[in-house]
Amino acid sequence: MSLKTDIEIAREATKKPIQEIGAKLGIPAAELLPYGHDKAKVSQSFIDSVQDRKNGKLILVTAINPTPAGEGKTTTTVGLGDGLTRIGQKACICIREASLGPNFGMKGGAAGGGYAQIVPMEDMNLHFTGDFHAITSAHSLLAAMIDNHIYWGNELEIDTRRVVWRRVVDMNDRALRQITCSLGGVSNGFPREGGFDITVASEVMAILCLATDLADLQRRLGDMIVAYRRDRTPVYCRDIKADGAMTVLLKDAMQPNLVQTLENTPAFVHGGPFANIAHGCNSVIATSTALKLADYVVTEAGFGADLGAEKFMNIKCRKAGLAPDAVVLVATVRAVKMNGGVAKDALGTENVAAVQKGCANLGRHIANLKQFGVPVVVAINHFVSDTEAEIAAVKSFVKGEGADAVLCEHWAKGGAGTEDLARKVVEIAESGMAQFAPLYRDDMPLFDKIERIAKRIYRADEVLANKSIRDQLHQWEQQGYGNLPVCMAKTQYSFSTDPNLRGAPTGHSVPVREVRLSAGAGFVVVICGEIMTMPGLPRVPSAESIRLNAEGQIEGLF
Amino acid sequence: MSLKTDIEIAREATKKPIQEIGAKLGIPAAELLPYGHDKAKVSQSFIDSVQDRKNGKLILVTAINPTPAGEGKTTTTVGLGDGLTRIGQKACICIREASLGPNFGMKGGAAGGGYAQIVPMEDMNLHFTGDFHAITSAHSLLAAMIDNHIYWGNELEIDTRRVVWRRVVDMNDRALRQITCSLGGVSNGFPREGGFDITVASEVMAILCLATDLADLQRRLGDMIVAYRRDRTPVYCRDIKADGAMTVLLKDAMQPNLVQTLENTPAFVHGGPFANIAHGCNSVIATSTALKLADYVVTEAGFGADLGAEKFMNIKCRKAGLAPDAVVLVATVRAVKMNGGVAKDALGTENVAAVQKGCANLGRHIANLKQFGVPVVVAINHFVSDTEAEIAAVKSFVKGEGADAVLCEHWAKGGAGTEDLARKVVEIAESGMAQFAPLYRDDMPLFDKIERIAKRIYRADEVLANKSIRDQLHQWEQQGYGNLPVCMAKTQYSFSTDPNLRGAPTGHSVPVREVRLSAGAGFVVVICGEIMTMPGLPRVPSAESIRLNAEGQIEGLF
Repeated sequence: MSLKTDIEIAREATKKPIQEIGAKLGIPAAELLPYGHDKAKVSQSFIDSVQDRKNGKLILVTAINPTPAGEGKTTTTVGLGDGLTRIGQKACICIREASLGPNFGMKGGAAGGGYAQIVPMEDMNLHFTGDFHAITSAHSLLAAMIDNHIYWGNELEIDTRRVVWRRVVDMNDRALRQITCSLGGVSNGFPREGGFDITVASEVMAILCLATDLADLQRRLGDMIVAYRRDRTPVYCRDIKADGAMTVLLKDAMQPNLVQTLENTPAFVHGGPFANIAHGCNSVIATSTALKLADYVVTEAGFGADLGAEKFMNIKCRKAGLAPDAVVLVATVRAVKMNGGVAKDALGTENVAAVQKGCANLGRHIANLKQFGVPVVVAINHFVSDTEAEIAAVKSFVKGEGADAVLCEHWAKGGAGTEDLARKVVEIAESGMAQFAPLYRDDMPLFDKIERIAKRIYRADEVLANKSIRDQLHQWEQQGYGNLPVCMAKTQYSFSTDPNLRGAPTGHSVPVREVRLSAGAGFVVVICGEIMTMPGLPRVPSAESIRLNAEGQIEGLF
Repeated sequence: MSLKTDIEIAREATKKPIQEIGAKLGIPAAELLPYGHDKAKVSQSFIDSVQDRKNGKLILVTAINPTPAGEGKTTTTVGLGDGLTRIGQKACICIREASLGPNFGMKGGAAGGGYAQIVPMEDMNLHFTGDFHAITSAHSLLAAMIDNHIYWGNELEIDTRRVVWRRVVDMNDRALRQITCSLGGVSNGFPREGGFDITVASEVMAILCLATDLADLQRRLGDMIVAYRRDRTPVYCRDIKADGAMTVLLKDAMQPNLVQTLENTPAFVHGGPFANIAHGCNSVIATSTALKLADYVVTEAGFGADLGAEKFMNIKCRKAGLAPDAVVLVATVRAVKMNGGVAKDALGTENVAAVQKGCANLGRHIANLKQFGVPVVVAINHFVSDTEAEIAAVKSFVKGEGADAVLCEHWAKGGAGTEDLARKVVEIAESGMAQFAPLYRDDMPLFDKIERIAKRIYRADEVLANKSIRDQLHQWEQQGYGNLPVCMAKTQYSFSTDPNLRGAPTGHSVPVREVRLSAGAGFVVVICGEIMTMPGLPRVPSAESIRLNAEGQIEGLF
């Protein structure tokens, strides 16, 4: 069998006009703002008009800790959406948008893979509907207005050493990580240090993804802290008077983007915050709107369940009043084997013992997810190299944990390969088993929230933080920020802060290196390890081979 | 009479679905890529399909030297398009896109004014169809790839002091004019000086506006000089291998944007290069495509005729093989009076003598335009304060110069106010009087080209340039760039390089401060005076009052 690449499969897709896809969700053509013939934004007026409707069921797709073997979380999200459609459910998928910049370093990502993909793939990896450009513009405007305020007399008495609002660009540009700006004399301002992050790391991105409407968006933008004075009091975006114009720049970007799977299932692809210094989920407005329009909404969270699902539950669901009805935990036999200690180049050989050992990682995620009161089903994303005995070992283990594991073949078969999973998901979602509750209360002290996650999710013995960090947390509590959730930034490769510790480590400590307040997004970022907010390009960037071929098709992007 | 503002008039417009506007030009709906319901891009495949058609007539709208009184060049362009439609011609307008950043400093510009406007005004002043964001991305990618090349070993031996490719952002951000980048240690690269321009100043913008198709675009991008080695040999974009990926980023931006006037005349709004360091015209692809689809294409050039029309003729027409059939030279009685020495606050008082004196400016532009072999008609853009005697004085003067002046009332009446102008334009365009030729041959030495423009257009006595500038021009000639046209960057307020010299100054010199090679765009920029490529924000930026009102409309942008 000669296998087709993702892009070959995507190019063969029979896309329906986006108005037909919208019609599946009951969206009239006039309420869709088309971007070409296969993408559209859903109008704010239509979103407003469906608010009184009853919600459909919300299904979260998450995964075990990622390994180089690949798990296929997005692929399973897409496949499940198609599978639900095939068994007669009105389904909608909600995933994040891709960042432009990184595509020019490594090859760009498809949204899904094989026969479980969302299209149009090229557009989604390039400018799409311009949301990220709008975020970059809004972020850049605030940056320019801060320095302009200082230039014209600095009435707000900003300490130029304590401007915390960096600049952003949607490009991997390490040369901009640390700069000095406003050089060149009187007419260019007061020289100071600064730097750029990649756009997805912007607090504006996190806010766009958490805001419930344009008024909430503007309020949150206004709440952002952009600098401090010499007396350490904060200067807000609202003080700079940038919040109104930023909202105007973001008004279109706030509308969810509608596209489709290869099997024409509707998909909202909207928002894309970092999964470390932010919460890593698609927008609240997309998920909330989808719940009004579909019986089943399938969405995913960033990284593994220890980071992604935890933030989905404790940040997104808490803030947006959402409650998942079931969680699908994705694993591959290969990734379980890597968790069991097998090297990447030995994954092709049957190794049931390693599977059994690696299931410890899977088991801990199942137990963790149950703490949120949500039923779990494991999706085994099938690879051709998986053996019967290995699959049986995973199923047997999962059964022992009080859950079911379902073999899925969406990569090779599309929605036909996930009908069993879809039926299982419907069974548990309809059962009403879910009794969702976040892991901690709003009024718990910030440090206790960190400890709760470290002990209950990471299964660490302790959290290490020096006095200055604890003092900072106390100060924020005194300033009224104590009720915020915490947003953990640690490696996605391990339950611990050591990326090499696979499986289900115990006895470890979680050292907190730094804490940051995202006052507009509404969370305290807790940084445990090195976090890179501006990637660089590799020695041979993929951009060098990206080009249009003679047929006008894009080569080298995938 | 209570006068309505431009935005009030625009909001009352009855826009037709963009497919109907496309149909007026014979574009099938399937060949339009809609952006919402009132904007669309014209597909490359459709553009390819009309290449064998005969061209319509090309009408250039230009103006006398701008004054604070305002001339209304774009308003007249729009009004003439509507007027031509009203008298039964199949007309299409071609103008530039607006830059996003400056709207947050001063209030944003409408495209036209009064009852001669192009809509949707808000979108056109914000993200529109994302073209400028695509240009920013393509520019930024090349910048990142240059520093990345240096970081990974600098195989091309770039002299880091001679990287001439600056960065861009579509925002007025003076703090970025001059920076040091790559600070922070080994992992961030080799510290060097750099800086940002505003996006419209990017050579990528000029190239997008001059390229005839995607292959030409990529070739030109590859030709751009990004840095020099220690031995002063140039390093090209092609050496960095960024041209293919940049073309991919720009493929949608290359397609012209279709919108409409208040009277539903089709308008292509596409591209927006700087009018000083670049040629200041909308894209060649928009103009060329419009000529295949309409009987009359009305377009405009930046600034006054001494800069805008000269570059339109000597750069755009020469490069694209276009030939204007008539030129409309826009003047207002008020602006003529300012050229005659009247202060702005005295413009409301009748002053026929000042009109007669100020006509010298008008007269010189008429004579200049005739040198290109193109017939000229003067459009007097009517203001309510104009008196009969003043209008008569302008008409009488123009008659003496061998041309006609037509009073236009499009601001108050839309196309009904330009029917006379439209009829006059048709008369001279159909007469076949035009015998277009550029002002100089390709093979004339670069310095002689500068002198030709300075003496024939600015009517200067001499061009002053020191030896290093003359040597630089000779060097480029030896490198094979001698056949390029020159792109003059001087003040738009005067024929001379002194912005305060209104009227028709003589006896002046043109000092050349600097020359720059835009090898991809294909011209040598000749800088005579201070040129600002990154504007700043004013003390109270308009952004402070831009916001969404309770109805979701944008306030403060206009």
